[in-house]
Amino acid sequence: MTRVSVAGARGRMGSLAVAAVQAAPDLELVAALGRGDDLAAAVGSDVFVDLTVPDQVMANVEWALGQGMHVVTGTTGFTADRVEQVTAWAQAADRHVLIATNFGIGAVLVMQLAAKAAPFFESVEVVELHHPDKVDAPSGSAIRTAKLIATARADAGLGDVPDATTTELPGARGAVVDGIHVHAVRMRGMTAHQEVVLGGPGETMTLRDDTYDRSAYMPGLLVGVRQVASRPGVTVGLEHYLDLD
Amino acid sequence: MTRVSVAGARGRMGSLAVAAVQAAPDLELVAALGRGDDLAAAVGSDVFVDLTVPDQVMANVEWALGQGMHVVTGTTGFTADRVEQVTAWAQAADRHVLIATNFGIGAVLVMQLAAKAAPFFESVEVVELHHPDKVDAPSGSAIRTAKLIATARADAGLGDVPDATTTELPGARGAVVDGIHVHAVRMRGMTAHQEVVLGGPGETMTLRDDTYDRSAYMPGLLVGVRQVASRPGVTVGLEHYLDLD
Amino acid sequence: MTRVSVAGARGRMGSLAVAAVQAAPDLELVAALGRGDDLAAAVGSDVFVDLTVPDQVMANVEWALGQGMHVVTGTTGFTADRVEQVTAWAQAADRHVLIATNFGIGAVLVMQLAAKAAPFFESVEVVELHHPDKVDAPSGSAIRTAKLIATARADAGLGDVPDATTTELPGARGAVVDGIHVHAVRMRGMTAHQEVVLGGPGETMTLRDDTYDRSAYMPGLLVGVRQVASRPGVTVGLEHYLDLD
Amino acid sequence: MTRVSVAGARGRMGSLAVAAVQAAPDLELVAALGRGDDLAAAVGSDVFVDLTVPDQVMANVEWALGQGMHVVTGTTGFTADRVEQVTAWAQAADRHVLIATNFGIGAVLVMQLAAKAAPFFESVEVVELHHPDKVDAPSGSAIRTAKLIATARADAGLGDVPDATTTELPGARGAVVDGIHVHAVRMRGMTAHQEVVLGGPGETMTLRDDTYDRSAYMPGLLVGVRQVASRPGVTVGLEHYLDLD
Repeated sequence: MTRVSVAGARGRMGSLAVAAVQAAPDLELVAALGRGDDLAAAVGSDVFVDLTVPDQVMANVEWALGQGMHVVTGTTGFTADRVEQVTAWAQAADRHVLIATNFGIGAVLVMQLAAKAAPFFESVEVVELHHPDKVDAPSGSAIRTAKLIATARADAGLGDVPDATTTELPGARGAVVDGIHVHAVRMRGMTAHQEVVLGGPGETMTLRDDTYDRSAYMPGLLVGVRQVASRPGVTVGLEHYLDLD
Repeated sequence: MTRVSVAGARGRMGSLAVAAVQAAPDLELVAALGRGDDLAAAVGSDVFVDLTVPDQVMANVEWALGQGMHVVTGTTGFTADRVEQVTAWAQAADRHVLIATNFGIGAVLVMQLAAKAAPFFESVEVVELHHPDKVDAPSGSAIRTAKLIATARADAGLGDVPDATTTELPGARGAVVDGIHVHAVRMRGMTAHQEVVLGGPGETMTLRDDTYDRSAYMPGLLVGVRQVASRPGVTVGLEHYLDLD
Repeated sequence: MTRVSVAGARGRMGSLAVAAVQAAPDLELVAALGRGDDLAAAVGSDVFVDLTVPDQVMANVEWALGQGMHVVTGTTGFTADRVEQVTAWAQAADRHVLIATNFGIGAVLVMQLAAKAAPFFESVEVVELHHPDKVDAPSGSAIRTAKLIATARADAGLGDVPDATTTELPGARGAVVDGIHVHAVRMRGMTAHQEVVLGGPGETMTLRDDTYDRSAYMPGLLVGVRQVASRPGVTVGLEHYLDLD
Repeated sequence: MTRVSVAGARGRMGSLAVAAVQAAPDLELVAALGRGDDLAAAVGSDVFVDLTVPDQVMANVEWALGQGMHVVTGTTGFTADRVEQVTAWAQAADRHVLIATNFGIGAVLVMQLAAKAAPFFESVEVVELHHPDKVDAPSGSAIRTAKLIATARADAGLGDVPDATTTELPGARGAVVDGIHVHAVRMRGMTAHQEVVLGGPGETMTLRDDTYDRSAYMPGLLVGVRQVASRPGVTVGLEHYLDLD
C-alpha cells in the first residue's frame, strides 16, 4: 500500500486526484491539503502530489523531499532554474520527482508516437481542435508536437514537407512551426483534441487524442504516483514513465 | 435503353465515362468521340455527354441540342453568359441540359448536407485535405462549401461563430471565407477529401467525403445521364438531381 | 416572449431544460414542476414541456392541452395507441404536440441525412460507439438508422450491399438489421457516438455524431419549444421540425 | 550506391519495386527478373529482393545468399521450418535476411504502437475496413493486431475489457480475438484500412492506417533494402527495422 498526500486538494485537478487516490485499492490517502492547511498532516506519506500554483509549489516540494517523500507535480511554472533547484533537493534527500505539465496519457502518447512515426513519412500535419473559449491558437500541445516532429524529421535527414501551394487565401495552410503546418479548429461541444496525419505514397496514418474532461488526467497521475519510487532522479514529462522505448 | 454518346472520350474523365456507359445495362453507347472526330457518329443519341474543353463545348452543345439530344456536361468554363446561351438553345430545341463541375456524389452531398445542418449548430469549420501537388489552397470546393454554410447561417439569423482567440500564430485559425474558417491540409497519399465539423453544446457532427480516384465521378455522371430527360430546363449543379429537398 | 413550463424539472433532462429556458432571451419560465407539484402553477403557459415518466405523461399532456397549451415531450413510452389518444386531445383543443425520443440534433441529422444519401451509394454500414456500461448492442438509434437506410435503399431499387465474405470469425461482420451491417463498439471515455459510412467506386462518405453529454439535447428541445405553435397536429420525431425537405 | 536485383519483377508488387529502386538516387537496379529468367543476371547485387511465390522463393533465397547477397522478401508462406532453413543458409553465408508479410509502414506502425499504448487504457477495440471483394473477415492484420494488444494487456496485468452488454443482436459486438473485440466493415471505394480505438476515463485515443493502393508498400520495402546490410541475422517483420524501441 502506497501512502499518498495531495496538495491543492480543493482545486479542480486536486479534488479529482483525491478521489482517484481514494478509489485505488493499492493507494492510501494520508492528507488532502488545501491552501493554508498545515503540511504536517502529510507526514508519513510515501508520495506527495502537488497540484497547487507556481508560488506555492517550490516550498511544498522542498518540504516533502526533506520529509523523505517522493514528489509528483502537475503544477505549472517549472523553469530550467526551478528544475535545477528541485534536482539539488532531490539528490540531497535521495528521493525522486516527476514534473509533468500534461497527465493525459493519450495526449502524451499521440505526441510521442507521432515523433516515432515521423521519420517514415514524407508528409505530416497537425490539427488541434478545442472549445471556442480558448484564447491561444494553436495550443501549446500542438506546438510541442510540431517541434518534436520537426526534430525527428531533421534527425532522420528528411527535408521540407512537400507543398506545391502557389495561390493561398491567407491562413489556409495553417501556422508553420519549425516547418510543420499546424491547424487550430475552435468548436462548441469539444474540449481538447489533437490529430496528427502522416502520409506517404498510397498510405496515410492518423494518430488522434480526444480529451473529453479532466478525469482524463487521473490515469496518468496514478502512473506517476505508482512509479515515482522506482524512477531515480528528477523526470520532466510523463512520457518517460510510459516505457515507449 | 437510353442511347448515349460521349465527347472528349480519349481524356481521363471521358474514357472512364465510355466504360461506365458500356457497363450499364440500361445504357447503350452510340459514339465515343475524340478531338477531331465527326459529331455525326452521335446522331440518334438520346443523351450527349460533353467532357471536352471550354473552347469546344459550346459548339458541341449547340449541335447536340439541335439534333434533339439532351446534354450532360462536366466541362469547365460555364460563365453566366454561357449558361444563358445554352438556356436559349435548350428552349428552342425543347431539350434539357445538366451542367456540373463536380460529379462526385459524396463531395456534392457533403456540401449540401452541411448547408442543411448549419442552421442548427453554433460552430462550424471546414477542413479540406488534398495531395501536396495541388497549387491552390483552400480548394474551390471548400470555398463553395464555406459560402453555402455562411448563407445558410445568415438566412437562419445566426451571427458569427464563437472564437475567443486573442493570441494566434499567423494562419493557425485558417483562412476565413464569409466568416467561416477553412483549413487546407496537404498530404502525400491523399487525393481529395473534405470534412465539415459542426458543434453545439455537448455535441459535434462531422460530414466527410473521401475521394480516392476519378472513378468516383462515374455514379454521379450516370445519375445525370439517366435523369436529364425528366428534368426540364438547364440545371447547374448535380445537387438538384439528388432529391435532397 | 414565449411562456414555458417544464414538468419533470428535478430529473436530469428536466433540470437542464429549466436552465435552458431561463437562459433563452425569447423564452420565459412560468413553472418548474417536480413529481407531486400542483400543475396549476403552469397555468398561462404557451408551451408545456413534459420530461417525466410513462405513467405520468398522459395525464399531464391531457391537462396541458385542455388548458390551451402546446406540448413538447421527450418522455418515453408513446405507443401507437397513446399517439392516437394524444391526437384526439390535440384536435379537440386545437393545439399542437411534438413527441420526440431523441432531441440530439446531430444524432437526428445523421440518421436522416444517411437515409437521404443511401440511394446513391452501393455500400453502407453503421458503427455506433458507446460507454461500456450500456447493456444493449447495438443501440436503439443504430437500429433505427439501419432501418431508415434499408427503406431508402429499397425505395430506390437497390439490392443487397456487396459482401464477398466466405470465411468469418463469428460476429466479425456485425449484426445485420434489414440487410444493413451494424457494429457496436464499447469504449471507456465515450458517451454516445454514431457513424454511418457510405461507399461507391472511388469514394466514401462518412456522417458522424459525437454526443458528449446531456446538454446536447437542449438545442433540439428549444427548436421544439419555439416551433410547436407553428407546426399543426401531432408530430412524432424532431426531424420533422428541421426542414430537411 | 547499393546494387539491387528484384525477382518477381513482372508481378504487381515486383513491377512497383523495380520502379521504386530505379527512382531512388542511392540504389542501382542490377536485374529485374521474371519467372523463368536466369538468376545469373543478378550476380554482383548487394541486395536481392524476392517478391515471387512460395514454390520459387526458397531456391532463390538459397542462391542469393550463396552469392553473397543480403535478401529482402515479401513472398508469403514462410513457415517456422522455412525460417529455420533460411537462418542456416544466412549464417553459413554470413549474410542478412528480412522476411516481411506487410511492407506498409503505417499498417505496421498502427499495430506496434497500439500494442505499446494498450497497457495504459481500460478499453480497446479494433475496426478494420476493406473493399467488399475480400473473402475473409476480419483481416489477418486485424487478428494479428488484436493478438498483439491482448498480449500487451496480459503482460501489464490488465483484465478483461469492460463490457456490460446483456442484450445483443448476434454479431453486434464483433468477433472476439483473445478477448479483444474486432469489427470488419466492407465498403466499396475502400482498399485496406485499420483503426484501433483505446479509451480510459475522459479520454480516447485512435490510431488509424489508410492504405489506398500497393504503392504504399514501397517506402517500407526500401527501408528493408537500405537497412538489411546493417541488421544481422534473419529478421521476421518490418517493425524490427523501424526503431520503435
